[in-house]
Amino acid sequence: MASIRDVAKLANVGPATVSRVLNETGYVSAETRKKIEKAMQELNYTPNELARNLYHKKTGIIAILVPTVAHPFFSEFVNDIEIELHEKNYKAMLCNTSIAGNAELEYLDMLNRHIVDGIISGVHSNDIEIYQKMKKPIVALDRYLGEDIPVVAVNHKRGGRMAAEELLRNGCRKVLHFRGALSVESPYHERHYEFDRMMREHDVEVHSYELERNRFDSQYYEKVIADVFSKKIPFDGVFGVDLLAIGYMNEALRRGIRVPKDLKLVSYDGTYVTGMVEPKMTTVVQPIAELAKEAVQLIDLLVNGKSLQGKRIELDVTLQRGMTTLDC
Amino acid sequence: MASIRDVAKLANVGPATVSRVLNETGYVSAETRKKIEKAMQELNYTPNELARNLYHKKTGIIAILVPTVAHPFFSEFVNDIEIELHEKNYKAMLCNTSIAGNAELEYLDMLNRHIVDGIISGVHSNDIEIYQKMKKPIVALDRYLGEDIPVVAVNHKRGGRMAAEELLRNGCRKVLHFRGALSVESPYHERHYEFDRMMREHDVEVHSYELERNRFDSQYYEKVIADVFSKKIPFDGVFGVDLLAIGYMNEALRRGIRVPKDLKLVSYDGTYVTGMVEPKMTTVVQPIAELAKEAVQLIDLLVNGKSLQGKRIELDVTLQRGMTTLDC
Repeated sequence: MASIRDVAKLANVGPATVSRVLNETGYVSAETRKKIEKAMQELNYTPNELARNLYHKKTGIIAILVPTVAHPFFSEFVNDIEIELHEKNYKAMLCNTSIAGNAELEYLDMLNRHIVDGIISGVHSNDIEIYQKMKKPIVALDRYLGEDIPVVAVNHKRGGRMAAEELLRNGCRKVLHFRGALSVESPYHERHYEFDRMMREHDVEVHSYELERNRFDSQYYEKVIADVFSKKIPFDGVFGVDLLAIGYMNEALRRGIRVPKDLKLVSYDGTYVTGMVEPKMTTVVQPIAELAKEAVQLIDLLVNGKSLQGKRIELDVTLQRGMTTLDC
Repeated sequence: MASIRDVAKLANVGPATVSRVLNETGYVSAETRKKIEKAMQELNYTPNELARNLYHKKTGIIAILVPTVAHPFFSEFVNDIEIELHEKNYKAMLCNTSIAGNAELEYLDMLNRHIVDGIISGVHSNDIEIYQKMKKPIVALDRYLGEDIPVVAVNHKRGGRMAAEELLRNGCRKVLHFRGALSVESPYHERHYEFDRMMREHDVEVHSYELERNRFDSQYYEKVIADVFSKKIPFDGVFGVDLLAIGYMNEALRRGIRVPKDLKLVSYDGTYVTGMVEPKMTTVVQPIAELAKEAVQLIDLLVNGKSLQGKRIELDVTLQRGMTTLDC
């Protein structure tokens, strides 16, 4: 499917000039117009996209389903996905499912009706059965949505181990561990299992706090932090996703607890917010741009008819040391 | 245009059930199936959306153009816009323009070619001329994109005044003011003019730092903060958007400057990150959810043929006092 950019490239002009010809909105010399029209013919470019889509049964639209974009991990992820899709001449349709839970079904329906060519999904799905039956281009981010649906995720086991090793090196003996909802079918549980296993192996006391599924809003995180502090347990180590580790640290600082002297923290995800706090957060970084790139590559292959049954892509995480742990 | 949700409502079943009938992916009783088919007929619902769009010359898709979603203001805005659009049965197409600058033109082109029904734009446009000539459904967020294009923004003048009053009450005498790029045509300059005017009126020394246009990334913000500190000016007050005020504060804390004793800060936007730092940031809050609601209402009116020539919507800001200023 040729785009306006392909036409511009072939005609050796800027996209703005092609746009002016198409939309009759400005002056373009007769010579340039001719070049552009020739390029359009050569590329079989038709401005009536709807008719063209009907013919090709493709729309060039990929839907991105996330719980919310008002959250640093998902906003970085959606940002990078859109950039990668744009590179490959797709358009990105965005859907937040945390408020409108049904929206997920609408999008699956749109996939069946050829309104979107594929779906990249990072949601806490309620209806995995429907995904499994679809046999359409779907890529899952950090979720299991069915045996046949390819998954892009990081090596969470290693991530859990890195966090555990960092807190163990720092001598922590009483650790708080925020863990994702067990009811979500996700590779992320691996990090929780590994973290807990290592703590037990070293006789460290671990308190697990299981988060509710599908809650990513500040109000919820504030409630969780208040809840944890109400129990008055003197933790000397904390492990959890960026926003929770940061929330815990700030409340601790307010109470006069010194970081990292009395309290060590390691966060998970490593989004831009970990650099926005003082002291800077030590964090296990997910390579979000790489995850986005892989997800787009897979969806592109699926849209173009490749079979990727049960494909799993696992990327590596890295530890980025801030000032909330000591370099032991 | 009837949606799957309309069908579900009329048939008095859940959207999942309608989806199962459409996609033949699960058990639905004969009676329920009949109800759903009747509702589809009544609403003239056709699953072949592409053909239907071609007939109606509408796609139900609105494009959202922002510089980036990996930024708290735009991620909250895009999130709220998508929720509002979904409420009104539109789909949201997302486009980040800060990396792919040309994308803006592609979307204007798509609007002309009936691939999207309208555009909500919050970008630092390079090509305002093209917008002006289009006479199509476009709504601007906090930008001037042409005389005819409606604008949704806050009362920035009042925002600038609130910030100035707060720093004046706190006795600041040497103030740093991060201001938006002057080359961008935006209502936001009003807050800068008003802030500077009030500072001068009270004989307070103001240093303005003009930001580059179209830069919203952490790397850039870090560079700006390093640049400011390299000048070794002992500011006692700072005013700037959330991420810059936070960046300045953290660097100051690292250098042993006490907040709010030696340094007072007021940020602008009031996104969730202002509650994520310690001490909490005093901030002028833009009502992002309301801005999104207004923008969607306007685009819906335009798509439905209403004329809104030169319409301006101005919402109010509020001061939310954190711990970076004193309650004088």
